Amino acid sequence: MIVRMQQGADTEAARSVAEHLRSRGFEVHLIASSGAPVIGVNGRQIPEDLGPTLCSLPGVADVLDSPRPYRLAAREARPSGTVVQVGNVRIGGPEPVIIAGPCTVESREQMLRAAEAVRAAGAVMLRGGAFKPRTSPYSFQGLGEEGLRLLAEAGAATGMPVVSEVMEPDQVELVAEYADVLQIGSRNMANFPLLKRVARVNRPVLLKRGFAATIEEWLLSAEYILAGGNDRVILCERGIRSFDPSTRFTLDLNAVPLIRQLSHLPIIVDPSHGTGRRDLVASMALAGIAAGAHGLIIEAVPDPDDALCDGPQSITPDTLASIAARARAIHSALTPELAVTA
Amino acid sequence: MIVRMQQGADTEAARSVAEHLRSRGFEVHLIASSGAPVIGVNGRQIPEDLGPTLCSLPGVADVLDSPRPYRLAAREARPSGTVVQVGNVRIGGPEPVIIAGPCTVESREQMLRAAEAVRAAGAVMLRGGAFKPRTSPYSFQGLGEEGLRLLAEAGAATGMPVVSEVMEPDQVELVAEYADVLQIGSRNMANFPLLKRVARVNRPVLLKRGFAATIEEWLLSAEYILAGGNDRVILCERGIRSFDPSTRFTLDLNAVPLIRQLSHLPIIVDPSHGTGRRDLVASMALAGIAAGAHGLIIEAVPDPDDALCDGPQSITPDTLASIAARARAIHSALTPELAVTA
Amino acid sequence: MIVRMQQGADTEAARSVAEHLRSRGFEVHLIASSGAPVIGVNGRQIPEDLGPTLCSLPGVADVLDSPRPYRLAAREARPSGTVVQVGNVRIGGPEPVIIAGPCTVESREQMLRAAEAVRAAGAVMLRGGAFKPRTSPYSFQGLGEEGLRLLAEAGAATGMPVVSEVMEPDQVELVAEYADVLQIGSRNMANFPLLKRVARVNRPVLLKRGFAATIEEWLLSAEYILAGGNDRVILCERGIRSFDPSTRFTLDLNAVPLIRQLSHLPIIVDPSHGTGRRDLVASMALAGIAAGAHGLIIEAVPDPDDALCDGPQSITPDTLASIAARARAIHSALTPELAVTA
Amino acid sequence: MIVRMQQGADTEAARSVAEHLRSRGFEVHLIASSGAPVIGVNGRQIPEDLGPTLCSLPGVADVLDSPRPYRLAAREARPSGTVVQVGNVRIGGPEPVIIAGPCTVESREQMLRAAEAVRAAGAVMLRGGAFKPRTSPYSFQGLGEEGLRLLAEAGAATGMPVVSEVMEPDQVELVAEYADVLQIGSRNMANFPLLKRVARVNRPVLLKRGFAATIEEWLLSAEYILAGGNDRVILCERGIRSFDPSTRFTLDLNAVPLIRQLSHLPIIVDPSHGTGRRDLVASMALAGIAAGAHGLIIEAVPDPDDALCDGPQSITPDTLASIAARARAIHSALTPELAVTA
Repeated sequence: MIVRMQQGADTEAARSVAEHLRSRGFEVHLIASSGAPVIGVNGRQIPEDLGPTLCSLPGVADVLDSPRPYRLAAREARPSGTVVQVGNVRIGGPEPVIIAGPCTVESREQMLRAAEAVRAAGAVMLRGGAFKPRTSPYSFQGLGEEGLRLLAEAGAATGMPVVSEVMEPDQVELVAEYADVLQIGSRNMANFPLLKRVARVNRPVLLKRGFAATIEEWLLSAEYILAGGNDRVILCERGIRSFDPSTRFTLDLNAVPLIRQLSHLPIIVDPSHGTGRRDLVASMALAGIAAGAHGLIIEAVPDPDDALCDGPQSITPDTLASIAARARAIHSALTPELAVTA
Repeated sequence: MIVRMQQGADTEAARSVAEHLRSRGFEVHLIASSGAPVIGVNGRQIPEDLGPTLCSLPGVADVLDSPRPYRLAAREARPSGTVVQVGNVRIGGPEPVIIAGPCTVESREQMLRAAEAVRAAGAVMLRGGAFKPRTSPYSFQGLGEEGLRLLAEAGAATGMPVVSEVMEPDQVELVAEYADVLQIGSRNMANFPLLKRVARVNRPVLLKRGFAATIEEWLLSAEYILAGGNDRVILCERGIRSFDPSTRFTLDLNAVPLIRQLSHLPIIVDPSHGTGRRDLVASMALAGIAAGAHGLIIEAVPDPDDALCDGPQSITPDTLASIAARARAIHSALTPELAVTA
Repeated sequence: MIVRMQQGADTEAARSVAEHLRSRGFEVHLIASSGAPVIGVNGRQIPEDLGPTLCSLPGVADVLDSPRPYRLAAREARPSGTVVQVGNVRIGGPEPVIIAGPCTVESREQMLRAAEAVRAAGAVMLRGGAFKPRTSPYSFQGLGEEGLRLLAEAGAATGMPVVSEVMEPDQVELVAEYADVLQIGSRNMANFPLLKRVARVNRPVLLKRGFAATIEEWLLSAEYILAGGNDRVILCERGIRSFDPSTRFTLDLNAVPLIRQLSHLPIIVDPSHGTGRRDLVASMALAGIAAGAHGLIIEAVPDPDDALCDGPQSITPDTLASIAARARAIHSALTPELAVTA
Repeated sequence: MIVRMQQGADTEAARSVAEHLRSRGFEVHLIASSGAPVIGVNGRQIPEDLGPTLCSLPGVADVLDSPRPYRLAAREARPSGTVVQVGNVRIGGPEPVIIAGPCTVESREQMLRAAEAVRAAGAVMLRGGAFKPRTSPYSFQGLGEEGLRLLAEAGAATGMPVVSEVMEPDQVELVAEYADVLQIGSRNMANFPLLKRVARVNRPVLLKRGFAATIEEWLLSAEYILAGGNDRVILCERGIRSFDPSTRFTLDLNAVPLIRQLSHLPIIVDPSHGTGRRDLVASMALAGIAAGAHGLIIEAVPDPDDALCDGPQSITPDTLASIAARARAIHSALTPELAVTA
């Protein structure tokens, strides 16, 4: 069970609610938050009178209970769905959005050319890695702050907000200076200190699914960010690890309708990392839209074969333009939304 | 490498080719086939002159070599793709097809009502299990031949060909008497004696992917049927086993564009068994079509909650009709086919 | 729930029990069995008085209920454990047993040499495949009946019972003529017609775990054999499919203590197929014994590098002898059995 | 390829080597290290003369090349194996070691009692979590520094070094103040900033395998620590994610002989998290030793059922003592080491 205090409630009020709960034998956690305080209550069957009693205490906004371990991320917490606004891009709204760009920022000219090309092909947000999580210590680890600067410049030049990955708590403020959206990569989905830190900055977070995370674990990671005071979370399915060596990862599109049922957060799909093969990107991107995704994040550059990193999964602007056109047509075919009567 | 003899070539000619190969040190297998003989050659590097030499021998139709272990199932063996015709239904052609019906044949009235309902909702072929592979020996194992009779009757009454599962070599002739298409279930994908037997009857085969089979193993199972003389094979993705308990299986749509690249055989998708949850069927069915599937096989019955078996994954005819309409619209959005330029 | 009739109870008595159950609204299955009849009861909450009532009916031996879907295979059905006797080899008794031999029977001389070598190294039973389940139709499929004959001859010459795989129902009688134990391979664990057929012959069955089967599914496959009248089932863990390409399969030793808790059937371990790498066989064999396995089945031949099939996982007789000696020492270190007090 | 500079080589020498490499067209990375500089060389076929040329340059200690992506962690880099010394405990030496204690530090009394109990049962190092990675933000997150203080106190009182988890780069110095060994948890195996930071402190690191990490990825994570200047790394297998719901994780003992072949680093096994079930801990612990592990890390407390966290997998001191005695006996049975001749 969780108790949310009203915006502006003083800490005294929260402490008093916590005290009441403890006196009745509950374990209580005050959750650090940049917004109104949130109190998590654990470890026992909840008596029926507890909810009403708590709601009558000073400063309490509401009390949520759920059969599931996540609460703020659950669909019931906002049945109408969340739209995350980034500049004039709306993720979770009626139109699917396309985020595109290179895997990694390599140079000023590369970024500008890529930004213009993906913009012309239909992208509305620009991606590019400056801090790269690389399996080998001997691989190129990204340009760091210089990469962020080049990414932001290319975004500004083409009128697109930008998204870039943040890998450790101490980088959060730096990345937030340049990026409009902070990306948490698959390997960091369960990096809880990092989740707590991004919860405290005023930036939307693109939270990729861990490649061996269950849907429930993923939503609990989102819950860390929501409970910490940042409710602008975008979920991104990017492939799970499976037994077939044909593809680097197995893009799990079942996650799309599952997340739409279980959570109010928008969900997008990454067919580039999700397959690791450029020849599968278009089909899986369109399948993602048909499954109900709110958008796509795709690696696309003018000259995929020249990329230093992950070239094998990058597509050309022409392919991106084809995807964008077909994605719109498929999305129209889904409207009005299918009422599942059985 | 494999050598295909001409239709009508006598066995003497095939023996003579085999003799030539053995004399040069190759291991040779004459593959039992109801059509023209096929000779499999194994175990050594192939010298460059061998192909031309073989082609000049009497009765040889062609010689195929491939970097992959399957040859007859490979895209190169029939670049234009295979269309499997069943009655007036064409699987693998320009229109996606819908196969629907109950999980299991339970009674005459149930089958007739279900057949009429799915026909009206857009299905063109009828499914229904008479021999059921059940994990527990104490579960209902199907009506057997009586079930086949009821299925065939319902198909005839509604003008639809029918598909039903065959579980063991000795059942093949019996099921082939009643069913227009023989289904090999997921648990039998690597039941090689069964594959060899269905290769010898004049019926198309719907070959489901084993739930832990790689794409290559699946195509090798198809190869057993093709090499045995039956080239009317329809592949069906039906979900793989993964780590997430949210769904019974993880429908692997990556298989759809992969199969379309690697093989000429048509590929359809089963979102019912692939997820095990009726609330995911519509989204995953449409995603399958967007990924490039040639059709869908879906469990649908008038009263899903009354089904003896697998009711939780059966949808209503209304939902089926919605899927059919949207599938057509999505399919149009994919035409002309996306040229992947990178 | 299941009802077992007394040995010698006439079918009239069983029918009368079934009638009683049906009259109270239960679904009833008479399970074909070569021993005493067994009645499976499904589909409803069991009232408390039912057990005692049934036990008082003529011919009823006992009534088993279980929270688990398998019953005859459950530990509770025979708390002291099952010992399967094959010739003078006892599997499931106090001493771990070693079964060894080549993957595939290739020739008379190969079999005799291999049998003598593994016998000298400590094996007490001989393995060798005559019918081989091969992923590719172009691979060597085994010598068939000739292979069985050679295997039986080598077993007789060295005083060891022999085990060989059976792949389809119609082969069961043939294999049973030559082999002392019938092996069901991993790909056939859920081949239910085959399970039903081996249930009806007077031969112990070595049931390998499907490489993507849960423990529960495995025990349900054993249940098919037990319910069919054959209670001499030996379980064999042989590796599951996982995501790491280092090994062909991931030998799952957790299965060993789990099976010992859940079932009374003996459990052995196959480190050869379970890893696919000869350099891991010795360590994993010993780990299997330490985990509590009743024995090992290992591919070993005098000249592993000359084998036509699966040579990369075959070990030499010297390595086998080392394993045998250490296995005995490890087994002693486990006695008396560890009482898990918490 | 990597180039290691001599201890004490000045940075000028390293720069000059790097310059030489760049002038020949290689991409070069100077790897931050607290010891002697290390230079990683990427991206091209290595000409035969390069190694000898580099070795002749001033300050170069040696040049390592490898068919594998990790080099410092590879067995070839130290064929005799690494022994990590912690106080008077030697991990990787001839005797297997046992590390035990509670999952989480809860109170002073709990820690002292647990430390005494596990010490008496045969443990030589004490474990206990102060910073806990918890899937849910509402779960108890550990006592933090107070927990570290209590752990260190209990270790000192019983004469055992202590190991505790570190979750983020900024905690490294704090945890290193109290703990003798820093643990990197499964969810942080690919937290590269954290790996880089622990590489720079003078403390051994216990690196758990990510639950969906391949053996190669795991060794590359170790490589981050070694390349950063800390060569006291202990690997710990703790279970992978699989499809069977019987256990929380599937302890992968195949990793033990694989790591012993591929790397010189010591490897221990965690049967507590690796199974999540106390009734499997003893069997899997002993199997780990038989597979060749250098030690065990086990959750054990006087009153497992009272634990706030992970009680279901904690064993009693009595069970621990049984494991310790049997582990010694099994280890003796393995000596001298098995020479795998085939």
